[in-house]
Amino acid sequence: MPVPGPGYSITVRVEAPPSAGAAGDLTSAVGRVGGVITAFDVVESHSDRVVVDITCNAMSANHARDITDALQALPGVEVRKVSDRTFLMHLGGKIEVSAKVALRNRDDLSRAYTPGVARVCTAIAENPADARRLTIKRNTVAVVTDGSAVLGLGNIGPAAALPVMEGKAALFKKFAGVDAWPVCLDTQDTEEIIRAVELIAPVYGGVNLEDIAAPRCFEIEARLREKLDIPVFHDDQHGTAICVVAALRNALRVVGKQLADCKIVVCGVGAAGSAIIRLLLQRGPGDILAVDVDGIVHSGRGDTDGNLRWVAANTNREGKAGGLHDALVGADVFIGVSAPNLFGAEQVATMADDAVVFALANPDPEIDPLEAQRHAAVVATGRSDYPNQINNVLAFPGVFRGLLDAQAHGITDLMLLAAADAIADVVDGDRLNASFIVPSVFDAAVAPAVADAVRKAATA
Amino acid sequence: MPVPGPGYSITVRVEAPPSAGAAGDLTSAVGRVGGVITAFDVVESHSDRVVVDITCNAMSANHARDITDALQALPGVEVRKVSDRTFLMHLGGKIEVSAKVALRNRDDLSRAYTPGVARVCTAIAENPADARRLTIKRNTVAVVTDGSAVLGLGNIGPAAALPVMEGKAALFKKFAGVDAWPVCLDTQDTEEIIRAVELIAPVYGGVNLEDIAAPRCFEIEARLREKLDIPVFHDDQHGTAICVVAALRNALRVVGKQLADCKIVVCGVGAAGSAIIRLLLQRGPGDILAVDVDGIVHSGRGDTDGNLRWVAANTNREGKAGGLHDALVGADVFIGVSAPNLFGAEQVATMADDAVVFALANPDPEIDPLEAQRHAAVVATGRSDYPNQINNVLAFPGVFRGLLDAQAHGITDLMLLAAADAIADVVDGDRLNASFIVPSVFDAAVAPAVADAVRKAATA
Repeated sequence: MPVPGPGYSITVRVEAPPSAGAAGDLTSAVGRVGGVITAFDVVESHSDRVVVDITCNAMSANHARDITDALQALPGVEVRKVSDRTFLMHLGGKIEVSAKVALRNRDDLSRAYTPGVARVCTAIAENPADARRLTIKRNTVAVVTDGSAVLGLGNIGPAAALPVMEGKAALFKKFAGVDAWPVCLDTQDTEEIIRAVELIAPVYGGVNLEDIAAPRCFEIEARLREKLDIPVFHDDQHGTAICVVAALRNALRVVGKQLADCKIVVCGVGAAGSAIIRLLLQRGPGDILAVDVDGIVHSGRGDTDGNLRWVAANTNREGKAGGLHDALVGADVFIGVSAPNLFGAEQVATMADDAVVFALANPDPEIDPLEAQRHAAVVATGRSDYPNQINNVLAFPGVFRGLLDAQAHGITDLMLLAAADAIADVVDGDRLNASFIVPSVFDAAVAPAVADAVRKAATA
Repeated sequence: MPVPGPGYSITVRVEAPPSAGAAGDLTSAVGRVGGVITAFDVVESHSDRVVVDITCNAMSANHARDITDALQALPGVEVRKVSDRTFLMHLGGKIEVSAKVALRNRDDLSRAYTPGVARVCTAIAENPADARRLTIKRNTVAVVTDGSAVLGLGNIGPAAALPVMEGKAALFKKFAGVDAWPVCLDTQDTEEIIRAVELIAPVYGGVNLEDIAAPRCFEIEARLREKLDIPVFHDDQHGTAICVVAALRNALRVVGKQLADCKIVVCGVGAAGSAIIRLLLQRGPGDILAVDVDGIVHSGRGDTDGNLRWVAANTNREGKAGGLHDALVGADVFIGVSAPNLFGAEQVATMADDAVVFALANPDPEIDPLEAQRHAAVVATGRSDYPNQINNVLAFPGVFRGLLDAQAHGITDLMLLAAADAIADVVDGDRLNASFIVPSVFDAAVAPAVADAVRKAATA
């Protein structure tokens, strides 16, 4: 299923014999094991040897090793060095702290630092609300993780999660001018996480929780929302829910159905699935069937987990039991945030006419989108190499831009729904079709539209 | 004692009658109450009135009000608006987070974020030491405060301390290319502070503790040094101690004395005073008398505080008792990090010949430096409007640059002494004199010299 992409781009420096066929041998070796060459540069040429840099896209770390091994196995060829373009990009980290004020001379220093700064401190001590005017709090978001559920990698801990949080901070700045800072906590204890975030909160105007495992993430978010006077937003939950609601609105426009008439299957009841269900319920769908590893969630299952009990009580009106394949029969919409390769075209064929399939598991979706297309009218995934990529980058930058601009003290479902509608509305009627239900993540209109909608909802 | 300075620069917009004498009336009014005009701009001129922006330096917030009041009291003059140039500089905060990598297209995104970032995360999970290579940890320092002892303002809390921490972060970048981030903790409980710093540590290559009250600061630093594998440096202690040891080395060169022969009075036994005593003891001074509000510290006082008992056990060999004035009799060196206006020229006269006086209390020193100069050979303060300003900016940027470059796991007295010597050595023999014992804070040679010395000491 994976295809070679730039996320796995390597440059292999090899020494080869100066024969006429050397270049062909090298490129053939790469191609034979499935690598896609994007550049071929002769670095040195001698009478007895040539040195060549071969840059190519691979599918995985193992695949990159296969490519290197294939080159090394050629007669007379010596691999000198393998550079990884992704690693090169991460060297020394991806974000930095910059001064916004000049510090050229003593006058500057007297105002930015002592003694002038003392008056600014006093002003904030006398009127705490001034912190939003006179400090970075106005534009700054904490990206908080415990490293317990990072991408598809699982529980890799706070230090290994840092590259993701840095990337997120870079995206916050790029798409919405938000200053975001990684907070990678060296604990996975719910109480300690809550208390740590509470303690660091004075510097921030908002908290983005990231890659924290369920069900811990639910309690952490709920408790922090109670304790803090700044918005707390778990992106894996609400960022995903916003994007799904936006995409679904446009998908139903394409197939000409109303949400109130739709039977929706949500597969995966972790952080993302639960939040999708909660936000969809605000819009009054026909019915939702939630499915997890134990099958369709219903109140007769005797689940003890609070989240699953809430889901059972608020979905599945007819009390259906069974597995995912049973749930799909007659369903109008499938939304998967679960695991790879759970069903095939034959199950999509059992869904209602003009079915909508969002197979969002990463990196490998619940169903191959090409399979799904055989019977579904609209198909979306989380991947960048198919149409309709549902990516949280569409939501979180604009959401926090809006929250910060509104100086919001909290976040409501109305704001989340406003964000979803703003994303959906960026795709106007002329451009809307089965292969274009959400805007590109690089569409510069998205973040300002989302920010505006959230700010209005927050100040309404 | 304070003089008008740019830390208290205001711009007052006034409407005045269009008479020939108006400008003179306005400037005279400012001058009469002691304001120093630095700019006078006519913004609008009408037949019946002129609008003028008067920019002037003041001594204090009250003084700024006096100036405004004096203008308002003039016949026909109306103050429209008072802008504070210091506050204008702080609007929206003084630092920002910037991306170091381009995010122009899908290829960039695939390498900086998903899916490429997953391999970088995996590399760190497999080899935690790689965090120093592949993340911001390599160049990033936490500036941690609880807001309990901010400048001379005292316990103003974490939110009001943020402007100082932002300023410090800006200085870190300006002078040493270090990425520093404010961590303002909403607690003043020693255990909670220690635990919070431990929890956030994965992101950082060092911790700069700042403006945390004594004696809490001692325990926090000691415990964090035990727990963390990155250097922990309380700037109010060690930054000050480094600068004092540097300045004293050069002052003694000026007066031609050896430290081993000197009797030194250290006034103030809080964070700074204690650290100065500890570092000076590494250099073998003749004797040190520590003085606090209760007089000369000696083991017979029955102090119960651990820090004071340590000081009593390691200073005052002859077991002297008495007050500050008693301590000064025959002393070669006075180092004050305490309170304003504790003694006068007559006490300096009782010191040894060629006395050295460092009156570092901020903003008002222990003795007016002009008074001190009547009998002392070398005088230094913490103020920018007298020669020999002893300012921590000389130390902390270079110290952390060196620690980060060495990937140091801790910090030793040897590194602090190396930093002190590096600062002292920037003032070469040709330039050294009683009015120039430390380099300017804007001397670009200082931070690299300090960094080099610390790095060498850390890797020796």
